[in-house]
Amino acid sequence: MSGPSLWAWGTVERFPDDAGRRRLATMARALTGGADAALLPLPRDEDARVPTARIAAPAALAELASAAPHDRAHHAHGRAYPDLVRGFRGDFGAAPDVVLRPRDAAEVAACLDWCSDARVACVPYGGGTSVVGGVEVAAERRADFAGVASLDLERLDGLHEVDAVSLAVRAGAGTRGPALERALAAHGLTLRHYPQSFEHSTLGGWIATRAGGHFATGPTHIDDFVEAITAVTPRGVVATRRLPASGAGPAPERLWIGSEGALGVITEAWMRVQRKPRFRAAATVKYRRFDDAASAARALAQSGLRPANCRVLDPAECLLHQVALDGTTVMLLGFESADHDQGPALARALELAADHGGTVASGPTISDDASEVGGGAGEAGTWKKAFVEAPYLQSALVSIGVMADTFETACTWDRFASFHAAVTAAAHDALRRTVGGGLVSCRFTHVYPDGPAPYYTFVGPAKVGDELAAWREVKVAVSEALHAAGGTITHHHAVGRTHRPWYDRERPALFGDVLRAAKRALDPAGVLNPGVLVD
Amino acid sequence: MSGPSLWAWGTVERFPDDAGRRRLATMARALTGGADAALLPLPRDEDARVPTARIAAPAALAELASAAPHDRAHHAHGRAYPDLVRGFRGDFGAAPDVVLRPRDAAEVAACLDWCSDARVACVPYGGGTSVVGGVEVAAERRADFAGVASLDLERLDGLHEVDAVSLAVRAGAGTRGPALERALAAHGLTLRHYPQSFEHSTLGGWIATRAGGHFATGPTHIDDFVEAITAVTPRGVVATRRLPASGAGPAPERLWIGSEGALGVITEAWMRVQRKPRFRAAATVKYRRFDDAASAARALAQSGLRPANCRVLDPAECLLHQVALDGTTVMLLGFESADHDQGPALARALELAADHGGTVASGPTISDDASEVGGGAGEAGTWKKAFVEAPYLQSALVSIGVMADTFETACTWDRFASFHAAVTAAAHDALRRTVGGGLVSCRFTHVYPDGPAPYYTFVGPAKVGDELAAWREVKVAVSEALHAAGGTITHHHAVGRTHRPWYDRERPALFGDVLRAAKRALDPAGVLNPGVLVD
Repeated sequence: MSGPSLWAWGTVERFPDDAGRRRLATMARALTGGADAALLPLPRDEDARVPTARIAAPAALAELASAAPHDRAHHAHGRAYPDLVRGFRGDFGAAPDVVLRPRDAAEVAACLDWCSDARVACVPYGGGTSVVGGVEVAAERRADFAGVASLDLERLDGLHEVDAVSLAVRAGAGTRGPALERALAAHGLTLRHYPQSFEHSTLGGWIATRAGGHFATGPTHIDDFVEAITAVTPRGVVATRRLPASGAGPAPERLWIGSEGALGVITEAWMRVQRKPRFRAAATVKYRRFDDAASAARALAQSGLRPANCRVLDPAECLLHQVALDGTTVMLLGFESADHDQGPALARALELAADHGGTVASGPTISDDASEVGGGAGEAGTWKKAFVEAPYLQSALVSIGVMADTFETACTWDRFASFHAAVTAAAHDALRRTVGGGLVSCRFTHVYPDGPAPYYTFVGPAKVGDELAAWREVKVAVSEALHAAGGTITHHHAVGRTHRPWYDRERPALFGDVLRAAKRALDPAGVLNPGVLVD
Repeated sequence: MSGPSLWAWGTVERFPDDAGRRRLATMARALTGGADAALLPLPRDEDARVPTARIAAPAALAELASAAPHDRAHHAHGRAYPDLVRGFRGDFGAAPDVVLRPRDAAEVAACLDWCSDARVACVPYGGGTSVVGGVEVAAERRADFAGVASLDLERLDGLHEVDAVSLAVRAGAGTRGPALERALAAHGLTLRHYPQSFEHSTLGGWIATRAGGHFATGPTHIDDFVEAITAVTPRGVVATRRLPASGAGPAPERLWIGSEGALGVITEAWMRVQRKPRFRAAATVKYRRFDDAASAARALAQSGLRPANCRVLDPAECLLHQVALDGTTVMLLGFESADHDQGPALARALELAADHGGTVASGPTISDDASEVGGGAGEAGTWKKAFVEAPYLQSALVSIGVMADTFETACTWDRFASFHAAVTAAAHDALRRTVGGGLVSCRFTHVYPDGPAPYYTFVGPAKVGDELAAWREVKVAVSEALHAAGGTITHHHAVGRTHRPWYDRERPALFGDVLRAAKRALDPAGVLNPGVLVD
């Protein structure tokens, strides 16, 4: 078997074999103290349960439409922990009735016309990597519609235009990370936007979900890179003007950045790109106390040095990613530039790191060629490999009866210490209540002058058959805690359906009214991705 | 006489005396080739014509209300060229019927309640420095309302809270630039946001108009500094959460940043601040060709060096600001940091400048104390003084029968050469048609990796009595040209009423629908600053 897995992250080839799963089970037992990790039988595609379709595409859309159960199952949901569990069980009850694959913006409009007229819920679909229920209409909402169509944008792909003078490119929304970077590399360019889902997710998906990228400071959010967007709505096309900046009213593109498919279908975008970095400098710094590392990260974020990498991994995170096993906190520091030596910036960063009790564990390494710093060696290399592999690992853990998931947020520095204590306590409490306990780790993915973006992982033994209830209880507990402590319900995973209860409380109520009014103006039939952002 | 001028920029004390006006007239004749510049008699406040008020504030708002004609005249309009001309003529026909000065958010809400109930147009008023008709209800719209109230926010001022850990502060919307910086300086902090109107404009005004600040790259737009806002709308209060970043749906604060008073009254904001810069490095570079300087600015913007200053002044601009008189183009380069030496950044910037044909004219000067680089000496000092004085100069020019105004925009680098040629030609043509010719100059105020923000000044002899028609013809010509050539109608002056025709064409039509829907949701009676953004 090969190709995309029906239930797990990524491709079938990358899923570990039984020997790999046994090694993982041993490690999981060591990490969580659980005794139950054991190899469960893997599901077979032919056992996937897909409901009978309620509606079929009209003849005019026949060329774009697929009603094959396997195809529909592939579009049933994203790759959140509950999605993995349901997929592992062969439960594809959330499958759409039809998958539509338009080839251009006009065909997207035709699909929206049909959905609006026939009252078919229309779910824009990029890479299908949502971890927040972003591509699945909730069971209780399905009855409001004649059916559900998954609007797969994979054919709207490719690099269409390169403006090498302005360093901007026009690309299709369905372009996946690796294809985009390959096409850009031919011009010596890069978007330099690497969310953890990079291999599978798409440009349109990144924009629709306000993806974060993996750099710690400076331009990394997809928001920073969008120069102009084109979106198709049921009421027509929206195309913003290519501009480096403007003060003409509220920024129009900002309404669609983060609109999660509820306000239109992003079909293409002009994106700001960069010349490929050549100058690099990196080092790893260890701290005896996590709090000291956090203070150092704050100093770095407020210094104006703009490190590309300023990840802080707490002791549990170091353990999980096999970066350090001795209870220290590790900070991975890296600088990159296409233009100038990064040695001076790293040197100053290391001074700041030392001011807060850090000691250099490896590096500094300074280079001025195209090789990646720490790409293969040292803590940074170990961590980077683990970063890309983590979603694969999560799927494999499901297959050995281990619950593993992540959640991420951001808050201001002044409240971080109490925030972190409250959130960590809530996670531990919930794990104890539901599965007898487990591991909770934290890293900083991004640091801003006014606050960090902490990213938490929790791992515990799963109660097979009862995974979803346990997960839900942990998820609710940590979400309540981080909302109460002043964080955001999501820094870069998006809202989807999973985060809606807390999002609704986080956003100003009147902004909710504005979003509802915007949705009525753009999507009068209310068919676009119902249930995200507003009802 | 002292205090704010009724018609001119700033205070009466700063207006030049007759000797100063005579020197200016001599210079204006030399610059524009016009022969008509001559001292006109200055208007007297007691001759200001203010219409009878149509409506008075109710008793409940009596403590906040002023109906004094002089006060109303002060709130009649902003400081655009047409405003200066009308003020100079004693024409305050645009005066509001009443000026309201609420002391807190609750009183703002009470004012909005009255305006909504009594159908009174409500114009939020900060420093009154709008150059785009932002604070004046158009004559033809007044009949739609029972009256017009100017909602002056000067009492909502002050620094309310300092979070020195997160480097963020809470301040009132009515706080003016100097007061805010003085209060911050006591904490070693700075907002570091200096629009040309800094002396008189307010925090709330900067946010409502998406003010640009005067730094060339890096954080300079007010958009970058807003952490959270509180706004009062006729339907209630909107308060966004203090967060360093979030991916939870479209960014709510972005709807009010640039909303120009049409979607609510910003009452206070949490702003990201910085430690006061200590390390500075600066130099002045000359170019024989403006195009080369533009290419150098592009290279700098794309280098990641982030100069605080990267102003390019074309020969006419150099002449106007007395920076150089020999037909060269000048680039002012400056770097600032609170944390680290800026010498290496400047050295690399000068290499890039030289690569494009630049030669160092003064500097480099490197310092690590609190004194301003080029604050008093050299081309940068000369230019800086001229920058702050320019609005005063414009008022004085009106008083000697000279038409002088500016417009600003942004476009991508790939089209800049043809854009600049088209816009400059349109300005010259219009000046020839209307007043027989004049001077057109250009500078870059901001440079982005994907494009510059060119800022144009035009100066020509005014036909006394016919100034407004001539100005209108030039304004229309340059606005049409820059819109057609792919620019934005405003990079940082805002839309107001003056730019509406081009704004309506620049923004996607469906985004206009969204703004209308948002306005209906927030301001059902449609009383907030009618005529800006949407009708």
